[in-house]
Amino acid sequence: MNREDFENILYDFKIFSNLISQEDKEFICDNTRSISYKKGTTIHDGNECSGVFLVRSGSLRVYIMSDEGKDITLYRLHAGDMCMLSASCVLQAITFDVLVDAEEDSECLVINGPAFARVSEKTPEIKIFALETAVSRFSDVMWVMQQILFMSVDKRLAVFLLDESIRLKSDNIELTHEQIAKYIGSAREVVSRMLKYFATEGIVENSRKGVKIINKDRLRALTL
Amino acid sequence: MNREDFENILYDFKIFSNLISQEDKEFICDNTRSISYKKGTTIHDGNECSGVFLVRSGSLRVYIMSDEGKDITLYRLHAGDMCMLSASCVLQAITFDVLVDAEEDSECLVINGPAFARVSEKTPEIKIFALETAVSRFSDVMWVMQQILFMSVDKRLAVFLLDESIRLKSDNIELTHEQIAKYIGSAREVVSRMLKYFATEGIVENSRKGVKIINKDRLRALTL
Repeated sequence: MNREDFENILYDFKIFSNLISQEDKEFICDNTRSISYKKGTTIHDGNECSGVFLVRSGSLRVYIMSDEGKDITLYRLHAGDMCMLSASCVLQAITFDVLVDAEEDSECLVINGPAFARVSEKTPEIKIFALETAVSRFSDVMWVMQQILFMSVDKRLAVFLLDESIRLKSDNIELTHEQIAKYIGSAREVVSRMLKYFATEGIVENSRKGVKIINKDRLRALTL
Repeated sequence: MNREDFENILYDFKIFSNLISQEDKEFICDNTRSISYKKGTTIHDGNECSGVFLVRSGSLRVYIMSDEGKDITLYRLHAGDMCMLSASCVLQAITFDVLVDAEEDSECLVINGPAFARVSEKTPEIKIFALETAVSRFSDVMWVMQQILFMSVDKRLAVFLLDESIRLKSDNIELTHEQIAKYIGSAREVVSRMLKYFATEGIVENSRKGVKIINKDRLRALTL
């Protein structure tokens, strides 16, 4: 990719509308790499400062993991989104670690953490944008937490299937029970049992390929 | 309290070191009230924008509650702390509601939300401070979430008792089992059973007044 194309892609991300000086623009550009990740790759393991990810295509899953390997999905990032939590060296107030996986083949721009921090210290608008992005994720995480702590599994599963069908514009959710369990913070066995129950009620059909929603009204009724 | 004393108290809070113009200082001062809350009062019920709380003395508990009344403590605020989550009208990125109780008799300065927002829009340093405060709370909440999701009750209880004894500089934790259960996101019965077990192990003594730590080393060992 030539420099001009690269710059166009980079400056398409809204955060950089705040970059004014040519010097800062070039500095950010020099400190950004375009990286393609294969589906399933762990692209940030929570330990070092991997930098700020800008998602061009694909999907990233941000999650936390216990010592025993149990994991909980916090949120997912899609084209146009920015990941700040992988850059704890940029935001001092973030004192926890998350992991990030490429959930599909994904293309990202990755901005070096210290370089981003330098520019954000010089340009309050960029710092504010970065912090506001982090605070939005806080809202996402609170939603997940409330789901997990307060909502029963049938309701969580119904909310998840409906959200996915809206996002994918399809009634076919091509995920394994294991994957669904990770998203909703439950166990595979629990999800399998619940999907079997949904199927006997005529709400979904289960197959090897995943879950097909066949009665959306009844599924929606479960979320109320 | 006369105006000068009031200003001195207000400008003692670090965030206002960023206020430069005399006009902004007076505007904030005119839009701040000093309020005393009795122990047990709910001072923010999650629905409206109650403003920004600056804690002068006492202790506030910030928590979320399910429809069925189950609640989870997110964090507590003490003298010198600032509460941004009660001012969702200030930070647009916050889309969830929390509740705030006075846990002890507490004195607060309460800044009107729209007035705070107006000044923070004019002064990037104030906006950054407010956002950084919110992001720090995000870190606190992630810690709570990891405790609840991943840590067993005995460990959570041990961590809580040790933290409390450090905070209070005392081995006597004068809380009911019900209160402790709320703090660690468990049920009263579970906490009672666990404290009874701790007592038979010679780690604590339980009485009507609360819990007394008698073997700190063994309690610490439980947290590892």
